[in-house]
Formats: sequence, C-alpha cells, structure tokens
Amino acid sequence: MAADFLQRCRQAAGPDYVLTSPEDCAPYLTDWRGRFTGRALAVLRPGDPMQVAQLVRACADSRIALVPQGGRTGLVLGSVPDASGEQVVLSLSRMNRIRALDTVNRTITVDAGCILHDIQQAALAQDCLFPLSLAAEGSCTIGGNLSTNAGGTAVLRYGNARELCLGLEVVTPHGDIWSGLRGLRKDNTGYDLRGLLIGAEGTLGVITGAVLKLFPQPKASIAALVAVKSPRDALALLHLMQDRASAGLTGFELMSDFCMQLVATHFPRLAQPFAARHPHYVLLEVTSHESEQHAARLLELSLEQALERGLADDAVLATSNAQSRALWQLREHIPLAQAAAGNNIKHDISLPVSAIADFIDVTGARLQQAFPHCQVVCFGHLGDGNLHYNVAPADGKPHESFLANQKAINRIVHDSVEQFNGSISAEHGIGALKRDDLVRYKPKVELDMMRAIKAALDPLGIMNPGKVL
Amino acid sequence: MAADFLQRCRQAAGPDYVLTSPEDCAPYLTDWRGRFTGRALAVLRPGDPMQVAQLVRACADSRIALVPQGGRTGLVLGSVPDASGEQVVLSLSRMNRIRALDTVNRTITVDAGCILHDIQQAALAQDCLFPLSLAAEGSCTIGGNLSTNAGGTAVLRYGNARELCLGLEVVTPHGDIWSGLRGLRKDNTGYDLRGLLIGAEGTLGVITGAVLKLFPQPKASIAALVAVKSPRDALALLHLMQDRASAGLTGFELMSDFCMQLVATHFPRLAQPFAARHPHYVLLEVTSHESEQHAARLLELSLEQALERGLADDAVLATSNAQSRALWQLREHIPLAQAAAGNNIKHDISLPVSAIADFIDVTGARLQQAFPHCQVVCFGHLGDGNLHYNVAPADGKPHESFLANQKAINRIVHDSVEQFNGSISAEHGIGALKRDDLVRYKPKVELDMMRAIKAALDPLGIMNPGKVL
Repeated sequence: MAADFLQRCRQAAGPDYVLTSPEDCAPYLTDWRGRFTGRALAVLRPGDPMQVAQLVRACADSRIALVPQGGRTGLVLGSVPDASGEQVVLSLSRMNRIRALDTVNRTITVDAGCILHDIQQAALAQDCLFPLSLAAEGSCTIGGNLSTNAGGTAVLRYGNARELCLGLEVVTPHGDIWSGLRGLRKDNTGYDLRGLLIGAEGTLGVITGAVLKLFPQPKASIAALVAVKSPRDALALLHLMQDRASAGLTGFELMSDFCMQLVATHFPRLAQPFAARHPHYVLLEVTSHESEQHAARLLELSLEQALERGLADDAVLATSNAQSRALWQLREHIPLAQAAAGNNIKHDISLPVSAIADFIDVTGARLQQAFPHCQVVCFGHLGDGNLHYNVAPADGKPHESFLANQKAINRIVHDSVEQFNGSISAEHGIGALKRDDLVRYKPKVELDMMRAIKAALDPLGIMNPGKVL
Repeated sequence: MAADFLQRCRQAAGPDYVLTSPEDCAPYLTDWRGRFTGRALAVLRPGDPMQVAQLVRACADSRIALVPQGGRTGLVLGSVPDASGEQVVLSLSRMNRIRALDTVNRTITVDAGCILHDIQQAALAQDCLFPLSLAAEGSCTIGGNLSTNAGGTAVLRYGNARELCLGLEVVTPHGDIWSGLRGLRKDNTGYDLRGLLIGAEGTLGVITGAVLKLFPQPKASIAALVAVKSPRDALALLHLMQDRASAGLTGFELMSDFCMQLVATHFPRLAQPFAARHPHYVLLEVTSHESEQHAARLLELSLEQALERGLADDAVLATSNAQSRALWQLREHIPLAQAAAGNNIKHDISLPVSAIADFIDVTGARLQQAFPHCQVVCFGHLGDGNLHYNVAPADGKPHESFLANQKAINRIVHDSVEQFNGSISAEHGIGALKRDDLVRYKPKVELDMMRAIKAALDPLGIMNPGKVL
C-alpha cells in the first residue's frame, strides 16, 4: 500500500524528489525553535503546480495526510509532521520562480516557494517595494507567509500578508488546481476564497502561487527613539503622530526599559542613545515619497509638539540612514538579547490599542502576585496593538526551571488577553501549539463554523490535520 | 403552518414589526432601479440581534427562506425577495445605533442598519474619518455595504469595505449569534470568517453589527482636472502621481470626452474647465495631513512634471474647496447625465490596471463591429482598475429599443473582460442579476468551493437563496 503510494509519487515528482531515508528527511522534520521533531513517511518535493496536484490526488486516494511546508520558520509547529510517521511532508521549496512582474499594475506573480527576501529584491530591481518584512525573511517562503497571514514590521502602513495579496493559485484537497491568480484591486464575484485560504495554515489547500501588491519605493525613511513615561503616553504619541503623518508613519514600536537593559547587557557594542534611563521607549519611523528633507521636517515638527505636550521626555532623531539603522538595531536585538539571557515564556498577543496600557498594568500585577519578582519582557508593534509579552524569572533565578510554569503563566496572560477582548495569536498563527488555547478562547459558534468549512473543503481530512482545528 | 410561523415572528419582534399587508410590505419589495418587484410572505423588522436570532431560528424551523435587507440601494437584485411570495424580508433598518466610538483605538462599533452617512458624521464629530463613501451614502446601510463589500470613491487610499472592517457580529443560518466584534489590527486565530461573511451578500448569515476602522481627518484635499490624449497616458500619469504622492493620492478618475459632453449637454450650468476638447480627462485628488499648502505644492510639482513629460495636455488645479467640489461634480454628474440621455447598458468591471488601455481599444472595436456607431460611456476609478463601461445607441437612435441588445452586448464586454483577466463585478456584487454570468465566467473549481461552503454553513439553504450561487 505505502509502496504503491510512493511509486505513484515518484512518477509524479520524479524519483529524486521523493525522499524516504531518515537522513534525507531529517532537515524537514524539526521545527524552527527546535522544540519538536516529527516523523514522515516521505518528503515530497514537487517542481510545479501540476505535480502538486498529482501528489495531493495520490494522498487523497491513499488517505495519507500531508503537511505543506515552506521555509520551516513558523513558530507554532504548523509545518512539521506529527510523530506518527504516517504523514508526508509536501515541501514547496523547489517552486521558487518569480513568474511575472507588472510595473504598471504594480503586482508581482510568484511561486509559493519563493523566499521572501528574493521577492523584495525582485521588486527593488524594478524600483518597486514589496513591503512584507520580518526577521525570517532570508529563509521563509511567501507560501508560508500567506498561509500564516504573516505580520512583521510594515503592518502599520501596508497591512498583513492577507492585505498584500490580490490572488492565489491553490491545489485543493481534491487535487484540483484553482487558478485564482487575479491581479485586481476590486473583484466582488462571490465568496472571498483568497482571504479564507490565507491564514488557513495549509488546512484547506496548498497555496502554489500568488499575485502580490507592489508599492512605489519611498524616497526616505527616518527613525527616532523617544523616551516616554508610560505606555499611556506612548499611545498619546501614536495618536499625535498618526494625526500629523497619517500613512507617513511607517513604524511605531514600544520597548520597556527592561528590554533596553537586556540589549545593553548582551550587546554592549550597540550605542545607547540616552544618557539617562526612562521607563519606556518608542522607536518610530517616518517615511516620505517626496524627499529626505520632507521626512525630517515632518518628524521634527511632530516630536517638538510631543515634547511641548509632555508626551515625550526626550528624543533622538537619526540624521543619516546609518543612524536610523542603528536605532532599529536596538529594537531588533531584543529577541537575541532574550535568547542570550536564557529562554523565557513567550506570548504573541494583540489588543485593541486603547486597552494596551490597562492590559500591561493588570497583567503585570497578576503575574507578580502569582510569581513574585518575575520579569516581563514587553515590546512590540504598538501601532498594530501587537505585543510580544514574554515572562522571565526573577533576576538571578534559573531560566530552565522557570519554564515549568509555562502553562500557569500562559493561562494568566491569555485570560487577561481575553478580558480585554484581544487575541492570543496576533501574527504567528495556531499550528499544533495553540490548538487547545483556540478551543478555550474561541466562541463555540465560531469554532463550529470553522469546523464546518474544514469538513466541506477537506472531507477526507488529509490537509495538515492536527493543525489549527 | 404560515400562521404559526408568523405568530412566532410576532412574539419575537413584536406585532408591529411583522408586516404582512401588501401596502405595508410594498416599500420593501422593489429594487433600487425599479427593475423588479418581488413578493413576500412577510417583512420582519427586528430591533436587536437577539430578535434577529429568534427570527432566523423560526425561519429555519419552518424552512422559510429569508432575504436580509439594508437600505435597498443595491444594483444587482441582491436584497429583494423573489416572485414566489414564500420568502420573508428581514429588514435591519430599525437597528441603527452607533454602539461605541473609541478614538484611541480608532474604531467605531455600529449596528448593521446604520446609514453610512450617519457613521461618517459620528466619526467626524470626533475629528475622525470613516472613509467609505459612495453615491447612495444617504440611504444605504453599513450592513449592506459590508455584505456587498462596497467600493466607492475612497478605495484607492483606504480599500474596499472588507478592508475597513475589523470585526463582525453575525446571526448564523442556525440562528446563533456569533460575537466577533473584535477591534484588532492583527488576529491570526483561525479562518478569516469576517472576510468570508463580508461580500457574501447575506447568503451565509445576517450581519447585525460591525467594528469599523477610523482614520485621522486630513487637513486638506485638492482636486485637479487633467486633459490627456489616451487611457495609456492616463495610466502613466497614475504611475507618476503614485510615485510622488503615495497614499496622498486619494482620487484618480478617468472620463472620456463623450462623458464630459454628456454632462455639458444635460447640465449646462456646471462650468467646463477647458476651452478646447480633449480625448480623455483625469480627475485626481491629492490629500495632505499636514496643510493645504503642502497638498497644493505636491499637486503642482507633480503636474508640472506630467506636463513636461507630455503625459498631460492641459491641467486645471482647484484653488479652493469650492473649486475642488466643482471638479468632482463633473465626475459625479456622469451617471445623472446618462440617465437624462436615456437608459444604456451598464457594466461594472475591473481589470489589471496595466490591461485597461488594451481593453478599451479591443472592446470598443468589437462593439463597433457588432453595433456600428454605438457609443461607449467609459469612466470610473482608474486607480482601482474599475471601469463603469456603459454602451449607448448611436447618436440620435432610440435608447429603449437598443436595450434589447443587452444580452449580446454583455457577452461582448464580459468575454473581453475575461480575456484580460478581469472581473465582471468590481464593486456591485452578483445578487440575482449576475448569477448566470458567474457560472459562465468562474472556474468550476472555484464555484465548487463556494457551493461547498454555502452548503456547510447554511445546510437548509434558507439564507437569501437564489443570490450569488
């Protein structure tokens, strides 16, 4: 039975692209953070959508479950097989062609296995911007970005992956190819299948291609680091900046002083812009399509007003691209500094922007009560309401034993998220990791609708089972 | 049976809100353009989501189909009942409360029956902008806007209705209330039901409430009218304007000279800005959050460059709000001028922006061949790739008899749309009017997925049957 199935796969993809030996399969089985290693009947590496369709049909006929996989950089165990050894991995990594770039329509059409960075570069070569940007961009694939509706640092201005995609090509769980590669800004002909497949984490079909939006390249972006007293002042600053700069505000990141000290400790070579310490910092970025001068003036005027109103205690404006990069590096080194300090308990949450200050107060107090002197590493995309809200042990206490509190701490944080009408997964998705949480926090009506859709589109249950639902 | 059902409805909504007499029902049965009048068993007018749920449950138990209805301004027969007299109309018009406005989160939470204009005004009162704007805004409701994923004049900058909505409250076809009123910019917890229900035209559930995005009010918007030689030059102008103004370009409308002459003929009191005639015109609008001066300067510099490059033959810049309004009025009077000239055959299509010039050439030639001297009224939201591409009889020929060619002309236009990978319904939806076209032009795989979803969420088929699918 398995032999027949594998034979059929070899006929479809070519014998070199059906991997079965443990050594060949190993690179496809372990998740990005190294927390879990699954097993697989085989790893399939199709070269085009037609082959994907044939392989999915083979899986359907043999009732074999498949796990679509891109760059394997996901953080919720969404793209690795389970431990049964009965699932196959369907790796899209060979399908990495830029199919077309249309500078007049401002769209790029790509294979799902294209590396995000390669798409950014292809756009840049035509003086266009593909704005999706995140830490893993050197190895993640656009198929994975779309399947998880990836966020990243440009959401404030350009939206999530879903908002950056106009059309999809998808192999359905029946092994049919749906050619929905439309490059249209407006299309009201029936249900939004594009939006449904995006963020479905490979449970409703395999994304094999996409049409993505491109934007004009801006002329200049300038960053500033602003010291603020509290998250509440940071929110008032956000409001002021959006009023004045509108879409010109392209970054607004919050960092607590604890985050900044972590970076200072573990990366002493990075210049710390302020002599004094402040409770919180905002890294903000203003972008102009007119000129560098325009961006600088807009930033200066806005920050002057913020200082006058007492919303900011101090501010450092970059005067060169290098300085802007240096300010961003402080923000980007927080995850690395955390890793250097020792593992902690991570949460990727979002809240209504107006609830963030209260959430931080209330949740911090609850954590202190349950775990005295625990330390909160709180930073994130404040403009999107997205916090990376991580919890570390008290100063000097061992990190590894603290991780045993993960369940209890998740519960405190996520119950608090629920109370403030937030989300337990802002940008990473559900995967296998947060399935139980989904059941706990989603209304039953909503889960029932999701399950009905899953059963309708994938009646055999072969598409990435055990993920999301 | 019907008596029992109606009794149950009266208990749910109150006896005054279950209309059954022909006079009472009449205002709810005819479509906006007066092309079709249906019949109804009753018109139900619930006052809150709980009542909607009870009424839907009553319909489900009695297997009675229901037609959700907002302001009844739709253009595709989506919100009126069929001729059987067996369906009920579920009017949301009593549910018109603004539930909450959060200036910090920049969201407004509303009942589905709120009039669009009332939402705009509620936002404005708090110095916020709700950008959705369209001709029917004085009487259309947000529930209808969302159910049809409405477009309008602000899509270029702010997106369609789907992109303006963060969360929904929906009564499912089972009569359950799904409370998905989340005001989150990021939320990756499972399938995008919000996006699926938006644009589903009431076939998957009844939208009873929504959380909508608000934006900062801009400081100034300035319009210009630009004379161009061809749609191709208009596209080059679009590209230039987006490069320079990015999100500051908030309007970009194409009008053929024939449209302008129609307006001049039927509305002679409107000032015509150019002494000479030109083949095409672009109405564009630049918006600034900084100052009126900034908007004016950006517009001037961009248009100077366009004139230098030969992309524009002439240009008139508004120097006051009144002048901007006057230029917009030329655009807004095209539909009225058409109506005054006599009915024509209308199409609401979209194309990849890069295909528009070829589409206009090719389709115009095909129409001339089949219907010599017929006249094309071509205008629309060029920046979104959305054309209102209407066909009128040859000069001096009667309009009414020309309408007999509707099927043949639709076929020519829509076949051409298909050839250029466009959409036969850019912003109006499918309703009952374009169902046959949907089957003709949609890939079967896509239709099958849509039908599977419909059957899964509405197994009894009571939600607006005969619409979309």
